[in-house]
Amino acid sequence: MARIVMKFGGTSVADLDRIRNVAARVKREVEAGHQVAVVVSAMAGVTNQLVAWCQGLSPLHDAREYDAVVATGEQVTAGLTAIALQESGVDARSWQGWQVPVRTDGAHGKARIDRIDGEELIRRMRAGQVPVVTGFQGIGPDNRITTLGRGGSDTSAVALAAALKADRCDIYTDVDGVYTTDPRIVAKARKLDKIAYEEMLELASVGAKVLQTRSVELAMKERVRVQVLSSFQDVPGSLVVDEDEIVEKAVVAGIAYSRDEAKVTVRRVPDRPGVAAGVFGPLAAAGVNVDMIVQNVSADGTTTDMTFTLGRADLPRARKVLDENRDAIGFSEVVADADVAKISVVGVGMRSHAGVANTMFRTLAEKGINIQVISTSEIKVSVLIGAEYTELAVRALHSAYGLDAA
Amino acid sequence: MARIVMKFGGTSVADLDRIRNVAARVKREVEAGHQVAVVVSAMAGVTNQLVAWCQGLSPLHDAREYDAVVATGEQVTAGLTAIALQESGVDARSWQGWQVPVRTDGAHGKARIDRIDGEELIRRMRAGQVPVVTGFQGIGPDNRITTLGRGGSDTSAVALAAALKADRCDIYTDVDGVYTTDPRIVAKARKLDKIAYEEMLELASVGAKVLQTRSVELAMKERVRVQVLSSFQDVPGSLVVDEDEIVEKAVVAGIAYSRDEAKVTVRRVPDRPGVAAGVFGPLAAAGVNVDMIVQNVSADGTTTDMTFTLGRADLPRARKVLDENRDAIGFSEVVADADVAKISVVGVGMRSHAGVANTMFRTLAEKGINIQVISTSEIKVSVLIGAEYTELAVRALHSAYGLDAA
Repeated sequence: MARIVMKFGGTSVADLDRIRNVAARVKREVEAGHQVAVVVSAMAGVTNQLVAWCQGLSPLHDAREYDAVVATGEQVTAGLTAIALQESGVDARSWQGWQVPVRTDGAHGKARIDRIDGEELIRRMRAGQVPVVTGFQGIGPDNRITTLGRGGSDTSAVALAAALKADRCDIYTDVDGVYTTDPRIVAKARKLDKIAYEEMLELASVGAKVLQTRSVELAMKERVRVQVLSSFQDVPGSLVVDEDEIVEKAVVAGIAYSRDEAKVTVRRVPDRPGVAAGVFGPLAAAGVNVDMIVQNVSADGTTTDMTFTLGRADLPRARKVLDENRDAIGFSEVVADADVAKISVVGVGMRSHAGVANTMFRTLAEKGINIQVISTSEIKVSVLIGAEYTELAVRALHSAYGLDAA
Repeated sequence: MARIVMKFGGTSVADLDRIRNVAARVKREVEAGHQVAVVVSAMAGVTNQLVAWCQGLSPLHDAREYDAVVATGEQVTAGLTAIALQESGVDARSWQGWQVPVRTDGAHGKARIDRIDGEELIRRMRAGQVPVVTGFQGIGPDNRITTLGRGGSDTSAVALAAALKADRCDIYTDVDGVYTTDPRIVAKARKLDKIAYEEMLELASVGAKVLQTRSVELAMKERVRVQVLSSFQDVPGSLVVDEDEIVEKAVVAGIAYSRDEAKVTVRRVPDRPGVAAGVFGPLAAAGVNVDMIVQNVSADGTTTDMTFTLGRADLPRARKVLDENRDAIGFSEVVADADVAKISVVGVGMRSHAGVANTMFRTLAEKGINIQVISTSEIKVSVLIGAEYTELAVRALHSAYGLDAA
């Protein structure tokens, strides 16, 4: 007998039939003898409508009112799911964030969960009742409803699993697990039975959006075992767990790519101490997140070129900031290229294996793909390449690291 | 400078343009120097959709979950209205029933307001902020959301006006006031500047559905001055007030009609003490509300006929109850007629005027309309007639009592 949190996203509760399907899945776990708590998102499309109304009235609307409006989506789903469970013979009741309570900080629209009081819910689960909790929301220090930002229901589910000391947090979604890479690009992509938190984080941050990044960080911090699985198919999902739980660690667990990158080169900046701070200080102050950074060795001993990558959406802002600081930094020109992609190989096994990066470079070279920028971390090697090579690179690397399905 | 509660119904907040219109009306009162609190209903159609979802999942759904689901409609409108007010430069914030708090009893789906703590709202109104409060809902002793039953937002507004010690409760709706009778039947119907609580109650209970009956009862009990006026036109409305505030009391304030009646005659019941209890006891136990009752004098000294009226929807249930108790009561047969209408003349002035009933009987006789049943109260005379005479009777009486507009 286990204690499980089951989380259902917007497409899984999109209409009454799907809510009945959710109830049937929950009932099955209850009948298997498990203690179950459910976390639900808003019905697909509902949150978008509510957001559009807020924006239609005021582009700069009060985030506290926005929260009160958009939080209703999950409130509706939680009530309806409780009704569907009761109708199927399962004892259930809905809980809104403020009722649990799910305490958050006061950052309306993008709040962080501070604390969940799980005692009452545990008491009821022990007595056989299924709590159905609204995802995505809590209550702030001002006694007003807060929301966690888009996709926050995953984080709600993981935080609840931690508070309830659950054995597992099952995230039901419209994909059936975590794959070695995007199956739309590589037909031979394999579903992973298990993946480590760190791997999942690196994959999520470079574009494999199965789970919200914050929810994985929280799961790692609180050691919550997360399972990603499909609402619509009856197949096993992927477990996101501590790497100690993974007996046979693959050197490379997956290949991720992101086309949302841009490359910026600042030409002929003075080659002296403090110049990097001169470039990146103003960018950070403007909220521009810089990712990879390369500084070439100075050719003439007086100036150098500095190259970095950033989110493509941030490019206009970064250009503006650099132009405003041109005299202070003292560069000759800024060259930007948005036609790039970042390819990453990720795996906790590479900590103990040499040659992972070299395999990547060799594989890309064999395909005639030029590497523009390289960055590495303990469990990841990323390269920036021309965007048109994305699929070719991902497929070649997937084979090179032995990830192709038989 | 006055303190005003402004309540807007579903058609008044049906879309973003109408919500902007609401904000403009509120702003006008604020700029006139008044302290304003706003009560809003759900956007037109939203509550019906939410109710349909609950019923779609379970015809006998948990009323507590129903409340959690349907209460979201007002929550959305309150947040959006606060945003619209802020956008127009008015300081405003939304308040959900549980935040105020509006304390109710635990009768989910049809709760009654026990108490509203108005201090914090008064403090904020004094500081120039407009509270926008969700109508129709509160929080029960179980710390869960309750709703007051359909149309409950009028009651919310009146209760809030009482708690805030408001000078007036303005109910904005899609009609522009209370009329001497239904303008769809009598073109010469006049809008009343003022009408007494008791008159409004009698008119509401016989079919002039401008205000929810419970809200009028509450206004009378708490002495809240209520104004009914249009959201869409800039014309004065009708004030519902204590009759002492009405200097020139009309003998008859208005003519109401109801086609939702049915007449039942129980033939040849034993003419002995206790027989009325024998008939009406089982009906009351079955929840059938009986209205007018007539017992004829016994012709032969042993049996009599008993006639009463009831809501047409209750007719099948009443027949069933009577059949089940046939032996105990001892009647020969039950004859029902659903083809009837109840016409009522209402006015607090008739307390001090004789001949009001006689004018009614004479007027109907002149038109050849047969009166089937009569019942009177201190401020009302009602008759039951054939349904096909409804319009004729209402028009004739409207003229006879001098109510026609010039």
